[in-house]
Amino acid sequence: MTDASPRSGDLCGHAIGVFDSGVGGLTVLRALRARLPGESFVYLGDTARLPYGTKSRETVVRYSLQCAAQLVARDIKALVVACNTASGVALEALRERFAPLPVIGVLEPGARAAVAATRNGSIAVIATEGTVQGGAYQRAIAQLRFEVRIVARACPLFVALAEEGWTEGPIVESIARRYLDELFAPGPGRPDTLVLGCTHFPVLRDAIASVLGGTVTIVDSASTTADVVHDLLQANGLTNPVFATPRLSLLATDGASRFARVGGVFSGAPLTADDVEVVDL
Amino acid sequence: MTDASPRSGDLCGHAIGVFDSGVGGLTVLRALRARLPGESFVYLGDTARLPYGTKSRETVVRYSLQCAAQLVARDIKALVVACNTASGVALEALRERFAPLPVIGVLEPGARAAVAATRNGSIAVIATEGTVQGGAYQRAIAQLRFEVRIVARACPLFVALAEEGWTEGPIVESIARRYLDELFAPGPGRPDTLVLGCTHFPVLRDAIASVLGGTVTIVDSASTTADVVHDLLQANGLTNPVFATPRLSLLATDGASRFARVGGVFSGAPLTADDVEVVDL
Repeated sequence: MTDASPRSGDLCGHAIGVFDSGVGGLTVLRALRARLPGESFVYLGDTARLPYGTKSRETVVRYSLQCAAQLVARDIKALVVACNTASGVALEALRERFAPLPVIGVLEPGARAAVAATRNGSIAVIATEGTVQGGAYQRAIAQLRFEVRIVARACPLFVALAEEGWTEGPIVESIARRYLDELFAPGPGRPDTLVLGCTHFPVLRDAIASVLGGTVTIVDSASTTADVVHDLLQANGLTNPVFATPRLSLLATDGASRFARVGGVFSGAPLTADDVEVVDL
Repeated sequence: MTDASPRSGDLCGHAIGVFDSGVGGLTVLRALRARLPGESFVYLGDTARLPYGTKSRETVVRYSLQCAAQLVARDIKALVVACNTASGVALEALRERFAPLPVIGVLEPGARAAVAATRNGSIAVIATEGTVQGGAYQRAIAQLRFEVRIVARACPLFVALAEEGWTEGPIVESIARRYLDELFAPGPGRPDTLVLGCTHFPVLRDAIASVLGGTVTIVDSASTTADVVHDLLQANGLTNPVFATPRLSLLATDGASRFARVGGVFSGAPLTADDVEVVDL
């Protein structure tokens, strides 16, 4: 953008900060890098304190502010909250504390994509316990289209399966069936759209799809979030000139070797512990 | 004991402190209460920061010291570390910091029971990633009998299954088979003893046993730990007079209602959120 303000112009070359409770957010980072190939990223996985999904609202807000502070100290130009749990409870606190930094969560883009996808107005959401109980997806979807029917279920074993790298085969499908059969019981209100409301779940997408059959649209928020970030950078004159060489920094609060090993499942490319810097919040 | 020292005599009525990263240690508390019906207990689950199994040694030591300090402030007369991960890395630090408080871990009693149980000198250990990689069980067993053969495997999905309350049926057995088939491959070195090296695993004991068949002895450390604590109280004149009314306090660092719901699976009795006090470390 040529009409960028001096402040935003100065920031164009800065990285976009991304944080998650662990490695699951690497699915979001992957979508962001694909959509924004000229941008630099710094990703923080709060591996010392994962999972966020079982923790209270207050704890998740506190942890999110600490994660963001670590990234803000690295001069980011925008912040992506690549964690559904944190997106559900911490966005307002983050925007207030770090204004005018643009803060984007994964939850609202996922909700928007689901509302766009459904034809019969019935949407299912699967997520962690914290996300489901907090009701953030339910609220975000209802805000976009209030007459929609929403059913939600926590699927904690999907997180463990994804981290174990067991992403296909009969065990995954049995568990998926147990979780999903009730949500997708035959009948007039059967959902035609499923939101993968946890960043871990996209790696199980094929197994979930095979259990559901072809009549259900599966929405994951990673690519929708990448679109939102793209548009926001453009609108604020923050897009990096495409001739720049993008940088990628990976930070974790604990366990670089585990981060690299498990993170490889989610980022779609092998990682080594040398790629990961351990930081203390 | 009538020959107790004045100091230990003063302490007889005090509670025994027990901590774990979460609710799994309630299996140990259950065994302790059965073995020591006259004793009071205060149990702390560090639910805000679970799991410990994926965290680094330094982090687990730091968290363990904080948990113990919370219990020591409540005038405990002995401390049970009901978490295999913490027992593997933090016992020395705890004993040093809180001397002369007796500190008992679950790992050494489990190792001792396994060595006593094996007939062919081949033992398998299943645990969390942190416990297996730290090698604490392997060392504890080797210290008791150095020529023993030990195979170990992390089984993180067992933790998720136990917390979900899915403790029996084909899904559990399929996962158990996938984890255990390799460890128990037929041959002369096939283990005849399995240590459940994570406090979550006793609730899956029947499913594990049905996959292994009747030729493998399953050892869980809870009851052995209760025996060790019993003997230690006696030896130090710390046993509570049996006419005392035992008290039970349950503390968690986060999520009282989740603690109660999931904890009911492990404690063998229903709990409500009102039973649980949330504390900040």
